[in-house]
Amino acid sequence: MERGRLYGLGAGPGDPELLTLKALRLLQEVPVIAYPSPEHADSFARSIVAQWLKRGQREIALRFPMRPGPPPVEIYDRAATALAAELDRGRDVALLCQGDPLFYGSFINLFTRLAGRYHIEIVPGVTSLTACAAAAAAPLVMRDDVLSVIPATLDEAQLYGRIAAANSIAVIKLGRHIAKLRRVLDRLGLIDAAVYVEHATLPTQRIAPLAAVEPEEAPYFSMALIRRAPDLVTAGR
Amino acid sequence: MERGRLYGLGAGPGDPELLTLKALRLLQEVPVIAYPSPEHADSFARSIVAQWLKRGQREIALRFPMRPGPPPVEIYDRAATALAAELDRGRDVALLCQGDPLFYGSFINLFTRLAGRYHIEIVPGVTSLTACAAAAAAPLVMRDDVLSVIPATLDEAQLYGRIAAANSIAVIKLGRHIAKLRRVLDRLGLIDAAVYVEHATLPTQRIAPLAAVEPEEAPYFSMALIRRAPDLVTAGR
Repeated sequence: MERGRLYGLGAGPGDPELLTLKALRLLQEVPVIAYPSPEHADSFARSIVAQWLKRGQREIALRFPMRPGPPPVEIYDRAATALAAELDRGRDVALLCQGDPLFYGSFINLFTRLAGRYHIEIVPGVTSLTACAAAAAAPLVMRDDVLSVIPATLDEAQLYGRIAAANSIAVIKLGRHIAKLRRVLDRLGLIDAAVYVEHATLPTQRIAPLAAVEPEEAPYFSMALIRRAPDLVTAGR
Repeated sequence: MERGRLYGLGAGPGDPELLTLKALRLLQEVPVIAYPSPEHADSFARSIVAQWLKRGQREIALRFPMRPGPPPVEIYDRAATALAAELDRGRDVALLCQGDPLFYGSFINLFTRLAGRYHIEIVPGVTSLTACAAAAAAPLVMRDDVLSVIPATLDEAQLYGRIAAANSIAVIKLGRHIAKLRRVLDRLGLIDAAVYVEHATLPTQRIAPLAAVEPEEAPYFSMALIRRAPDLVTAGR
């Protein structure tokens, strides 16, 4: 029997309308849908596409713990085994990935386990990076700008070094690291240049100067955008 | 009369199916479509969406010279004036942008000229960055990785410094800068780690080790991906 094909589908940042036509087509063609899901809550990736799922599609919730840090190896092993079982039965599987599969996606951990044995096609999606920039109407990069995407999970010295050396900056995964990020930006004199975006493209979307955000906590899906390149209007002239 | 609204529509990397549902809806709702276009050739952005354009939509080709370096200021001024004329007549305008409007898009130069006076909504799109990674099945970034997007147009010393300091790297806009990039990667011992992607998601797509690409010339729409983070499979375990 011919093995099934695995599709890594970028589902975009959250607004269901930011799904691509290709992801929608494949989503509706496959007999099996899989998605990451916290242990005791609904799957965000599934919620993005829920309105387009069809009756009779088999669904596989891959239970990944949502606590900070990488889940134990066995969890990815088990998820890969569950997908492989479907593929071995000749069923095509669409694995939903919020944002883009290869841009900080846990998809990568499954891809590395399955890539040698199965045919995998990756469908890129709109990332939170450009979704946040669009929501804030904040130009990310132009012409010769270098863009640095920096996880706030780095330790404070690394975070400082990376931001100090960058010009256009997106600091992602703020969560409980937002106070640390604020300290770093304060030291660099950049706090007033930082725009904070939370839940971009969702009804709960929030945009604010980072300096105005309570430093206690931010959701995991939040980002700070900082652009220290020459003044935009000047640069455009 | 109420002024029209300007939509900056990300049209994605080239495959028409990588348009988002939102971009497609807006594209078909507006009376006026605008797009950048070289002086003596067809518009790439328009070609992506050509099959969905409707009869009776007004089209405005914004003539930007495609030679290296930024076009003269007057060209953006003239383009902004042409868009403003439509908006002042109360017509909504969709400005098509290949990839994402705020990710190295010439849209930014029009946005900065019009943002104060008109209501502008930006619809993010799939960037060439994640499209190239998907085409090459090359994980871009995971967990605490820092991603650096570096234009090959930088001078050789800057290019060297930026790449030397980065871990996950996308070097964009290769074009006539590919020989310079190869020299830099040779010096850094990274040439064999670099994957070359040209025309991602188009029928002309090409993926090759960068070391195997003739160093004379690459198209403008080409990219090299380099990941020097710990071995992926190991990292995933």
